[in-house]
Amino acid sequence: MTRIPFDEHARFVRSLLAPLGARPTERVAVADALGRTTASPVESPIDLPPFRNSQMDGLAVRAADVAGAPVELPVVGESAAAPGEPTPLAAGTAVRIMTGAPVPDGADAVVPVEDTEAVDGSGSVRILRARAAGEYVREAGSDLAAGGDVLPAGIRLAPRHLAAAAASGLTELLVRERVRVAVVSTGSELVEPGTPLGPGELPDANGVALRSAVDACGAVVVHAGRVRDDVARLRAELDAAVDAGAELILTSGGISKGAYEVVRELIEPRGAWVGSVAMQPGGPQATGVHRGVPLIAFPGNPVSAQLSFALFVAPSLRAIAGLPPARTERMPLAEGVRSVPGKRQFLRGNRTADGLAMPVGGPGSHLVAALAASELLIVIPESIEALAAGAEVDTVYL
Amino acid sequence: MTRIPFDEHARFVRSLLAPLGARPTERVAVADALGRTTASPVESPIDLPPFRNSQMDGLAVRAADVAGAPVELPVVGESAAAPGEPTPLAAGTAVRIMTGAPVPDGADAVVPVEDTEAVDGSGSVRILRARAAGEYVREAGSDLAAGGDVLPAGIRLAPRHLAAAAASGLTELLVRERVRVAVVSTGSELVEPGTPLGPGELPDANGVALRSAVDACGAVVVHAGRVRDDVARLRAELDAAVDAGAELILTSGGISKGAYEVVRELIEPRGAWVGSVAMQPGGPQATGVHRGVPLIAFPGNPVSAQLSFALFVAPSLRAIAGLPPARTERMPLAEGVRSVPGKRQFLRGNRTADGLAMPVGGPGSHLVAALAASELLIVIPESIEALAAGAEVDTVYL
Repeated sequence: MTRIPFDEHARFVRSLLAPLGARPTERVAVADALGRTTASPVESPIDLPPFRNSQMDGLAVRAADVAGAPVELPVVGESAAAPGEPTPLAAGTAVRIMTGAPVPDGADAVVPVEDTEAVDGSGSVRILRARAAGEYVREAGSDLAAGGDVLPAGIRLAPRHLAAAAASGLTELLVRERVRVAVVSTGSELVEPGTPLGPGELPDANGVALRSAVDACGAVVVHAGRVRDDVARLRAELDAAVDAGAELILTSGGISKGAYEVVRELIEPRGAWVGSVAMQPGGPQATGVHRGVPLIAFPGNPVSAQLSFALFVAPSLRAIAGLPPARTERMPLAEGVRSVPGKRQFLRGNRTADGLAMPVGGPGSHLVAALAASELLIVIPESIEALAAGAEVDTVYL
Repeated sequence: MTRIPFDEHARFVRSLLAPLGARPTERVAVADALGRTTASPVESPIDLPPFRNSQMDGLAVRAADVAGAPVELPVVGESAAAPGEPTPLAAGTAVRIMTGAPVPDGADAVVPVEDTEAVDGSGSVRILRARAAGEYVREAGSDLAAGGDVLPAGIRLAPRHLAAAAASGLTELLVRERVRVAVVSTGSELVEPGTPLGPGELPDANGVALRSAVDACGAVVVHAGRVRDDVARLRAELDAAVDAGAELILTSGGISKGAYEVVRELIEPRGAWVGSVAMQPGGPQATGVHRGVPLIAFPGNPVSAQLSFALFVAPSLRAIAGLPPARTERMPLAEGVRSVPGKRQFLRGNRTADGLAMPVGGPGSHLVAALAASELLIVIPESIEALAAGAEVDTVYL
């Protein structure tokens, strides 16, 4: 069995997944596009704002008519935020106007209502303060001119992006298709969670873990299965995954050095790499291709499978979906730790209130409850055998 | 019109939403629980791991039998990760064992395969290294004993939490119900996005903006509508929202000082507070209750509506959903800015590569494209009239 450095395997998996970055595109309704990623720059077909409108409740006037304020002007009409075209403004008159309402042709300034007073019984208004042309007027296209890009390519859509698309009158957006992933658990000992356990049986935790982790990375699970240690069944399951349109197959279990290693038995004779990565947990790893679809095989221990996904696959899927990389932070250890020289160790832990990295639950790869109680991984480099409390370490948030 | 300080309004909205924090609960399938929030601590009904198993591929032995290693032991059987109970180990014998497989009764240590060698033709194995009792054996319950809490109350469920629940054999989790929200846009000028625009008409951006923002806060939209400036229609719409089970109603538009302020006209006579908050954008604000359901009314400008939601409502909804608060960061301004004394200004901007806060698109509340191009709000306190480039400011990520 070959043992390769962590970084080499990470690089290899990344290169295997790189072609998935060239995504097909699809159109989705703006209302359904939250969290999706734009496939191209999005042009606004209209000016934003679409028409010249008032920034204030007040009076639309000609700036020239109010230059000598205080002045009195007859109020000849009204422009509200409502459909319709206001009557053009004649020189020497004013029109009452609401915030957002169209500014009439002929008017070139708005006097806020607080700078005016009614002239009793006359239907006129007294303008108390001069306003320059353009004041309190929002020109059509002053936010964005028609034909300009309201959204760039490659951004993950947040509410403010959908708002701008809707304001542009768009109903659909061209987004990247989500990466279609299959998740297959292997192991004769595994049963559906909730099934009463016979001797030697375990609930399958990897199915749920990897399916939800794929979801959380902005990809989509198109096939999920579980097979016992039977090569023919595994082959049929992988075929079903490909037939379901999977672009990436993730398996757990069956790649170690034991006697019943179903994934290894199927893929190794067909040229896959099955070996060991200098890391803990998660040493056994494999990569191959099934009917043209990349297959990344993780060990069966749930902690190993989850960490392998987080460290090798999640970075590529997150980048494709426009998600930021996992957060990293350098902090001092809360207590001393030991490690295995030659392997990169990923201890599970939490950040204490004092900003220290506190290991949780020991190094064992079976500690699923301890992993659930952790918020980060503490990275101990290959060269290290022991670190004292207070030593600075890299951490990666889960 | 009363004008109240920003913090006072924020506090008041928070107190109005506080009762929503006492959530009803519901059971959801573990597979559907990603992103939901646990309503109570979750007990594991079984030991984790459920049975004593091997940490390595190797040989299960009695530690006492290998104390004088090297020793030869007859291999009398095998224990694989598969259903079934292995035969108890007799003294002076060994059983081949796979990682994760049950350790037979009688055995108390596992010797890794690399510390053994086959004895040609004899069916025996030579153990090269002594192992103490317990080595490479994972005891049942060593991760978590049956009856222990595998998950605490009040956490937002990530893949690792679902994995631990599945490993515990659980199929459902008790989670907090999502807050049920109604979103109602008001304004005669608004049309469904995609409708060809007549004069004075605007696509309704607030509907999409607030619906998706509610989603992104872990709440759920149970009713969405749009009404023109007609009090009877608005009342019917709010009634429909309550009938749909809304626990919180959000409206946009109709609360300013203009002549057609439909939300104000409906709610102010019934005791709602309609006024002005010393902030920009987003000055006009209102809070009330419709048939016992809290109503938070935002101004109609899309930028004002989105910022009002983010600043007043999102913090409460995010906390209820177990989401972290919006990220804040103090950083120097990339360029000088002016502000309106007496108002808290929220400029839109981005963090430059050098870690500076760069304003985007000016202070206007109509700049929906500029908001979409921004990643944070730059907070200019009430006391400030101007700040020079390099001045430290608080920012809030969108």
